[in-house]
Amino acid sequence: MSTEPLFLRACQGLPTERTPIWLMRQAGRFMPEYRAVRAKADFWTLCKTPELACEVTLQPIDAFGLDAAIVFSDLLTVLPPMGCPVHFGKGHGPEVENAVDGPADVDRLRDFDAREDLAYVGDAIRMIVGALPADVPLIGFAGAPFTLASYLIEGGSSRQFMKTKTFLHQEPEAADRLFSRLASVVIDLLNLQIDAGCRAVQIFDSWAGCLDPDDYARWGVRYTRRIVEGVKRPGIPVIVFAKGTGTYLDLVAQTEADVLGVDWTLPLDRARALVGPKPALQGNLDPARLLGTWETLRPAIDRVLDAAGDGRGHIFNLGHGIDRHTPVDNVRRLVEHVQSTSGARRP
Amino acid sequence: MSTEPLFLRACQGLPTERTPIWLMRQAGRFMPEYRAVRAKADFWTLCKTPELACEVTLQPIDAFGLDAAIVFSDLLTVLPPMGCPVHFGKGHGPEVENAVDGPADVDRLRDFDAREDLAYVGDAIRMIVGALPADVPLIGFAGAPFTLASYLIEGGSSRQFMKTKTFLHQEPEAADRLFSRLASVVIDLLNLQIDAGCRAVQIFDSWAGCLDPDDYARWGVRYTRRIVEGVKRPGIPVIVFAKGTGTYLDLVAQTEADVLGVDWTLPLDRARALVGPKPALQGNLDPARLLGTWETLRPAIDRVLDAAGDGRGHIFNLGHGIDRHTPVDNVRRLVEHVQSTSGARRP
Repeated sequence: MSTEPLFLRACQGLPTERTPIWLMRQAGRFMPEYRAVRAKADFWTLCKTPELACEVTLQPIDAFGLDAAIVFSDLLTVLPPMGCPVHFGKGHGPEVENAVDGPADVDRLRDFDAREDLAYVGDAIRMIVGALPADVPLIGFAGAPFTLASYLIEGGSSRQFMKTKTFLHQEPEAADRLFSRLASVVIDLLNLQIDAGCRAVQIFDSWAGCLDPDDYARWGVRYTRRIVEGVKRPGIPVIVFAKGTGTYLDLVAQTEADVLGVDWTLPLDRARALVGPKPALQGNLDPARLLGTWETLRPAIDRVLDAAGDGRGHIFNLGHGIDRHTPVDNVRRLVEHVQSTSGARRP
Repeated sequence: MSTEPLFLRACQGLPTERTPIWLMRQAGRFMPEYRAVRAKADFWTLCKTPELACEVTLQPIDAFGLDAAIVFSDLLTVLPPMGCPVHFGKGHGPEVENAVDGPADVDRLRDFDAREDLAYVGDAIRMIVGALPADVPLIGFAGAPFTLASYLIEGGSSRQFMKTKTFLHQEPEAADRLFSRLASVVIDLLNLQIDAGCRAVQIFDSWAGCLDPDDYARWGVRYTRRIVEGVKRPGIPVIVFAKGTGTYLDLVAQTEADVLGVDWTLPLDRARALVGPKPALQGNLDPARLLGTWETLRPAIDRVLDAAGDGRGHIFNLGHGIDRHTPVDNVRRLVEHVQSTSGARRP
């Protein structure tokens, strides 16, 4: 087998001796070590201080021996330099200032140079890459245009995304300008992350699942594919995770991503049937399973491994970020179970 | 063709001269007539006063000529007589008192007689049936056990349903007792509605889509099927709408419902491929489409009709309740378009 790290080989559909595993939001509140750092610094300070971002990025690698790290940062880093500061209040998710309420607001968004305004992301990545074991690649990430636009238009989180969809359906030309701007900003950010040392990047379209297939084709695929094209380099896999899109995962595959994230509502064998043999699949345990007993958790893990067949082109993950109330011990057992049993499934 | 109402024939997969249409939450805030009544009475008063429930139930029938009415009531009517009062605050959804926090709380829930404690539902239905045109059947409804349990366990609305799932995974025996109680209460309520004159019933599993397929099979299918069996009578179709379950709609079909509700993420031709020829399908326009222009709305309606093939066994509806900001004129045009064009699609 190649000496390329396990995670990167799996992303490219190459043979692996076992299934690699990492967990979305693995540097997070479920870890006491993370909470200790967070007690001393607010969220943005953590993101913007390379030493702190590096420390929390490494915590789950040290604790659980995961097969990939993901830079500690936030989906919404690109909004403040566009003129829309983001505040993280208690419990109700982020609040975005200067929300986009009409076409004129789109044209008021500021252009910026990622290498200046987001220099702190590159600084953190260089420090993390220097500290990580050589066989643990670092993943960079950004939000997809639809998800970023939803925060800009709703002014924060939403359940139904009515304002966002109304904007798309009433002002398609302004929405196209907005999505194109966001795609270009995301391309710059991801390229900055790759230049700084990330060996894979993930595009999160966390709220895409609220769209019907036609809207996803128009507002999801189109701009996400532009990003994939804008960042693709040999040996640097691009992962697209469009949560809630299991009924039309074949459209998500049209983004030409190397890897598709899958949430827990679509078994991986059904996902494979929808997208064909090419893209690798990442997922897809329900994070809620980690809050149950080992007796209910273990068979759920095995069902994910079973649905992935011989495991080729599969990266084990959750179907969404890990919950803050997750017992650390369940995470340890999950990682150990996947790493110790998945090899025996190889043909 | 039979003289049975169009909607009932479509529910049974019988030939129809055109596609029937009704809209979830059609008696609602988007109508000025509704807001006028609501200005005089709070939500529970509206539900519990037969004259008012009758008035708002008929408003959309009078205004738009829809093919079915649905009794004005709430999913959570069964909770207060179980000892868990429900309050509708502003903006944040219902709040449920005496939330279920552990197995002991399940056993503390009160038994009640639907014919006494929910007599107001029957009173409203008899009045509505007397006032409705003979060719417009009245639909009764209730919540499915999982959705009801989620309100009881979370104490209100939720985004991730972590408490509910943790309860299922840690206390499966107590959860079984809870779900069995809820199934039995729902059977009583639906039978009361049918006895009072409803000609179809719908079981709403609004939050089922947060479950992985295995949990849905265990906690959705099992108890919902028990309800379907407990209320089935010749000529009274049972509709199951489990929102967000498009990736495993074949499991929802195992409830043996006559009609399956489908949300807008799964095109109806894909739904049909998953469930086979038997159940009728109800849906599935994204309610957000109704907030756009007619230029974007009309093709979206036509895509739904196209995906339903020759239209047999299709009831047009939204994929979720109508939004309060929906322009009345778009609803009028939607109903007119479906009623005037769908007949030409018949073979």
